[in-house]
Amino acid sequence: MRIAVVSEFSTRDKNPFILDAVTAVQPDVHNVGMTAEGDAADLTYIHTGLMTALALNSGAADFVVGGCGTGEGYMMSALQYPGVYCGLVADAMDAWLFSQINAGNAVSLRLNQGFGWAGEVSLCHIFERLFQDQPGGGYPPQRRDSQQRSRTILCDVNAATHRTMIDIVGSLAPSIVQPVLAHQPFVDFMAQFAVDEQLKSFVTGR
Amino acid sequence: MRIAVVSEFSTRDKNPFILDAVTAVQPDVHNVGMTAEGDAADLTYIHTGLMTALALNSGAADFVVGGCGTGEGYMMSALQYPGVYCGLVADAMDAWLFSQINAGNAVSLRLNQGFGWAGEVSLCHIFERLFQDQPGGGYPPQRRDSQQRSRTILCDVNAATHRTMIDIVGSLAPSIVQPVLAHQPFVDFMAQFAVDEQLKSFVTGR
Amino acid sequence: MRIAVVSEFSTRDKNPFILDAVTAVQPDVHNVGMTAEGDAADLTYIHTGLMTALALNSGAADFVVGGCGTGEGYMMSALQYPGVYCGLVADAMDAWLFSQINAGNAVSLRLNQGFGWAGEVSLCHIFERLFQDQPGGGYPPQRRDSQQRSRTILCDVNAATHRTMIDIVGSLAPSIVQPVLAHQPFVDFMAQFAVDEQLKSFVTGR
Amino acid sequence: MRIAVVSEFSTRDKNPFILDAVTAVQPDVHNVGMTAEGDAADLTYIHTGLMTALALNSGAADFVVGGCGTGEGYMMSALQYPGVYCGLVADAMDAWLFSQINAGNAVSLRLNQGFGWAGEVSLCHIFERLFQDQPGGGYPPQRRDSQQRSRTILCDVNAATHRTMIDIVGSLAPSIVQPVLAHQPFVDFMAQFAVDEQLKSFVTGR
Repeated sequence: MRIAVVSEFSTRDKNPFILDAVTAVQPDVHNVGMTAEGDAADLTYIHTGLMTALALNSGAADFVVGGCGTGEGYMMSALQYPGVYCGLVADAMDAWLFSQINAGNAVSLRLNQGFGWAGEVSLCHIFERLFQDQPGGGYPPQRRDSQQRSRTILCDVNAATHRTMIDIVGSLAPSIVQPVLAHQPFVDFMAQFAVDEQLKSFVTGR
Repeated sequence: MRIAVVSEFSTRDKNPFILDAVTAVQPDVHNVGMTAEGDAADLTYIHTGLMTALALNSGAADFVVGGCGTGEGYMMSALQYPGVYCGLVADAMDAWLFSQINAGNAVSLRLNQGFGWAGEVSLCHIFERLFQDQPGGGYPPQRRDSQQRSRTILCDVNAATHRTMIDIVGSLAPSIVQPVLAHQPFVDFMAQFAVDEQLKSFVTGR
Repeated sequence: MRIAVVSEFSTRDKNPFILDAVTAVQPDVHNVGMTAEGDAADLTYIHTGLMTALALNSGAADFVVGGCGTGEGYMMSALQYPGVYCGLVADAMDAWLFSQINAGNAVSLRLNQGFGWAGEVSLCHIFERLFQDQPGGGYPPQRRDSQQRSRTILCDVNAATHRTMIDIVGSLAPSIVQPVLAHQPFVDFMAQFAVDEQLKSFVTGR
Repeated sequence: MRIAVVSEFSTRDKNPFILDAVTAVQPDVHNVGMTAEGDAADLTYIHTGLMTALALNSGAADFVVGGCGTGEGYMMSALQYPGVYCGLVADAMDAWLFSQINAGNAVSLRLNQGFGWAGEVSLCHIFERLFQDQPGGGYPPQRRDSQQRSRTILCDVNAATHRTMIDIVGSLAPSIVQPVLAHQPFVDFMAQFAVDEQLKSFVTGR
């Protein structure tokens, strides 16, 4: 599973903690948003939401880890797009339940609200639990099938409610798109791993 | 502000608590999903998500309160649609921050996970804080303008990524749409309050 | 109700937030431990626990607000003494339930763990709920009498398990006692408000 | 490490979950309070607090697991006695920090407040973290020595503030003592494992 981490500017100081926590339990992790240090232009949750959609819909990433101060902004931003199933995860129990019940492909972390002492330990616990069990096991166990049905139908709804990703990127304002295309770690990631040629070409300009 | 409450089947036993908590602080509340008692057919978060979108996009409701076991399923379901800005709210602090930072028009409640003693008190505290201050005040205060800008851009993204609501309802599978159209409290609510004639007609069949 | 706030060194930067939060809902608040600024010698939870016991057992304070990084250390320290009934309060719901079920005379706040964005707002909510309703109302209501009985018996246990406060202060090591007697805001508070002459004299040296 | 679990009546339905969670990570666990089924007389947190003190001070147990609806009552009850260092543990992070910072010999669980879906999973996570690392490792690491010093001084305070355990049991009211002496699983546990002959004799009547 290839995982992309996308940090926005208000929580970029937490990016090293996220990276440590994810790499502790997953071998293939790519840090493609902002970092604690470095001089990249600011990315807001608007941009990291778009990056999430591009990474997932192009096949570049199998799972995306984002977040913001409370987690609500990035979560809503990422969920604007087709093919994104993003949970809001404030602690390790949220992470485990989201993996078992919803089996999504993205999580939004709460990185300023309630982030104090042991915040970096909490991130470690979150990713241990998120990737501990096979996704979709269901909780409580007897509701597994009904939860699986709802997930399948949610995908049908997702397909009916959204325009295609290539139509979307073509109609987003340049102020939304340009910072994403100018963020080199993301462009490099897409150039290397994107399978969808149209989205890859859109991001890399080639 | 007209508020619709939409409960799904796995948390229908919590519906009376939600209703009490919202009506304690808001005068115009409509209970249009499942109730603790009653013999309506089961509605899942798939259905209450669609009801949320219909209520908000038709102008029938200004704000929608939903939820599910962990809050993640309904939140993702409601956020599939245009015009819905739904936060996941597990406690009173989440509620206040969501109102100040994100100023959305729906909340998803966590109604089985961690819902024990004083769960009904927690719901009261949630709605007191959610509606305590003018939405969009910003937190921390100095980030108010930047948060406002992100909200405006999120609406632009929302418009670019979704098909129109009337196109959507026309292409959703009958198994998704029919339980909603057969749920009389919702149909009555839409008949009385929906402003958009197309969506009103779709729901009421008239 | 006269309230004393006793901050220890590892969380002294949170003292102004505590003071603001308590004074917002209570008129008679005294800041007698460490402050965010100032050059007093370090007080640990060992010292603020002793100050709590002296303030309550002398009649100088009716209620004491303390805390530490996780809240556990100060809570255990304050509960070593007779006449102290201290709850560990991490959020507003804890505060309300502690007031209703346990009706104690001290609280220990969690001031580093999970103290991030909106930590100061959380303190405001905590004290609003702590002092919102008449203590001892019981929760759930039908358990009010049984909870009251347990509180009364807890006082009997407290009397049977502890030495007297004056015996205790006479046998504590100087390294525990001296920093308390050298902390002028606390000595002044005891000089002004302590009713028990022995404890007052012990602290003021007069 | 020999562990005793002491459940009181208002949370006795959670006793099987506690037992499963502790035995999953510890080999030597004894269930000596109330159980979900069975016809023993009611034990309140007053009684389980005394049992905790007897088990620890007699050498019968190395660690005691108790709790109540919010965790506050049992915590205060257990902390009335000499030789008991009991933390209030609401989730897995609390458990880990308590083990690292406070290294106590008892925990009070929150068993009704916020105990809903996945409450039994939360208990498993709590005990995994509580016993994961060597107690007293310190958090943050650079505060390890200062935290260790405070723990040592807390023991000195504990010795100075309390009467001896044998004096205490001799002066507690029969209504407090009798239900403990009449609870056979506890008496059997003390008969088998207590090292202190006076306390053993007090409990077993032999």
